[in-house]
Amino acid sequence: MALLLTSTPERQVVWRAAFAAAGEPFFASEAEVTDPGAVTQIACWTPPADLSRYPNLDCVICVGAGTDHLSDLPEGVTLVRTLSPGLDAMVRDWVTMAALCLHRDLPAYVDQARRGAWQARPVRTARSRRVGIMGMGRIGALAAESLRSLGFEVEGYSRSGRGPGGIKVHGADGIGAFLARSDLLVCLMPLTDQTRGALNDALFAALPPGAMLVHAGRGAQLDMDAMRRALDAGHLSTAMLDVTNPEPLPPDHWAWTDPRVIVTPHVAAQTDAADGAAFALQVVAAARAGMPLPGVVDRGLGY
Amino acid sequence: MALLLTSTPERQVVWRAAFAAAGEPFFASEAEVTDPGAVTQIACWTPPADLSRYPNLDCVICVGAGTDHLSDLPEGVTLVRTLSPGLDAMVRDWVTMAALCLHRDLPAYVDQARRGAWQARPVRTARSRRVGIMGMGRIGALAAESLRSLGFEVEGYSRSGRGPGGIKVHGADGIGAFLARSDLLVCLMPLTDQTRGALNDALFAALPPGAMLVHAGRGAQLDMDAMRRALDAGHLSTAMLDVTNPEPLPPDHWAWTDPRVIVTPHVAAQTDAADGAAFALQVVAAARAGMPLPGVVDRGLGY
Repeated sequence: MALLLTSTPERQVVWRAAFAAAGEPFFASEAEVTDPGAVTQIACWTPPADLSRYPNLDCVICVGAGTDHLSDLPEGVTLVRTLSPGLDAMVRDWVTMAALCLHRDLPAYVDQARRGAWQARPVRTARSRRVGIMGMGRIGALAAESLRSLGFEVEGYSRSGRGPGGIKVHGADGIGAFLARSDLLVCLMPLTDQTRGALNDALFAALPPGAMLVHAGRGAQLDMDAMRRALDAGHLSTAMLDVTNPEPLPPDHWAWTDPRVIVTPHVAAQTDAADGAAFALQVVAAARAGMPLPGVVDRGLGY
Repeated sequence: MALLLTSTPERQVVWRAAFAAAGEPFFASEAEVTDPGAVTQIACWTPPADLSRYPNLDCVICVGAGTDHLSDLPEGVTLVRTLSPGLDAMVRDWVTMAALCLHRDLPAYVDQARRGAWQARPVRTARSRRVGIMGMGRIGALAAESLRSLGFEVEGYSRSGRGPGGIKVHGADGIGAFLARSDLLVCLMPLTDQTRGALNDALFAALPPGAMLVHAGRGAQLDMDAMRRALDAGHLSTAMLDVTNPEPLPPDHWAWTDPRVIVTPHVAAQTDAADGAAFALQVVAAARAGMPLPGVVDRGLGY
């Protein structure tokens, strides 16, 4: 029983030390693997090309939060996503920043700065802006809490209609009402067959006129041409994106320089190497003890 | 006994309605004043040029939070600043936005977007960043609360060393220790003789290398040439300014297009017209009752 990591040299160093301290067998790269039959866990973002080399593979641990790129794992392999409070908080921080930037017209001020224009716009109170969060998992709940504490009127949407206490969460049959009240829409959904391409013409048209979009879900959920049409038609006024479609965004893509859009290069969160190794050791310990693994992904739901 | 407002036509309408509803005598502009001797309060941002026209003036109500531009009022006139929870929250929101923008490298990403560069930088956790707030009045306390709830390690500084409970506030003799620990410095001080020009070479050199500056105090506190030297020398890495020196910032000023600096045109807060009128009515009611006025500025301290 051993864990194989495929990652960067910097992370190899941190993980090797953590596994050595725990006395757990560890391969820091495929090149180190002397006995493929010993590998029972693989921790990775991108898995090895040929998983058939590892006949005793039980579990793949995704070092990030999203696992949509791992949907093709062989039957019988358990997929686990890294649970990290630090990672959740990072996304919450990015979403809070982005919501405030749109709420306070930062795209316009950044644009004005390019031509040295000192021109104030009316300031809205947070309590006059209704935020809608699509995706009410751990990160959505954290973001809802932060945005409510700033005064925004926050409601949520999730497939199941479930969410944390104290906040109204619309289910699938309430999507229309949810969108119609979301002056500022935050997408934090996982990528699944149902959410692929979900941010499209119809969704944007269902928002209040001049709505704002914060996207920290997955790039493939967003039809960027539809977003541009919605901006031109006034369904949307501004957008702040940490994920794009395609990704990376090509250097000549219109969204980079559109004054209504701010793009960051998929940096809402990065798993801390030590946190990731500590979580992987929890998975290994649970596997040794025959206990349920933490962070298991429902392969049917996709998250 | 009557109140004279000098403001915009939009605000005149709101104030006139509020004073009519309260049955309080009101002049919506100097042109309306038939009996100057009746004017006991003036509500304004910029006061009338010739205050000697109003022999019975008791009190000037500043419609904003900062009153440094009103330090030359005649002896015997009480200066009051508008107390507005909405205004305080607006500044808190801008400061929270600005602190998150610097913490998460938004100036660099905005700059990269200009050339279509998809290039991630390492993400820091909020708990690894020490925020120092200069000026621990009502707004400083609100900002401290929001930034702490996001995980930042927040301490404060005030002349008196006083501040809200639960947060360490350094007094004048602790300024060195305060600056030495402030990875991200937030200025929320009022403008006084002591704070004019306080953000200078010596202050920037006392910060940790690569510190960040959020400025929502007053423009005249900031030596912008010193800020540029500090950026070039690495004492500062980035800055986000809502107030500048001079103000408005001239169209050809270097700060507009410096990739390390984001400027917004003094929009951290705008007093809501209805809130401002409601506060002025509180002042008038207190004056009629012979009670202490709310929001009185200590003319000696300047705030």
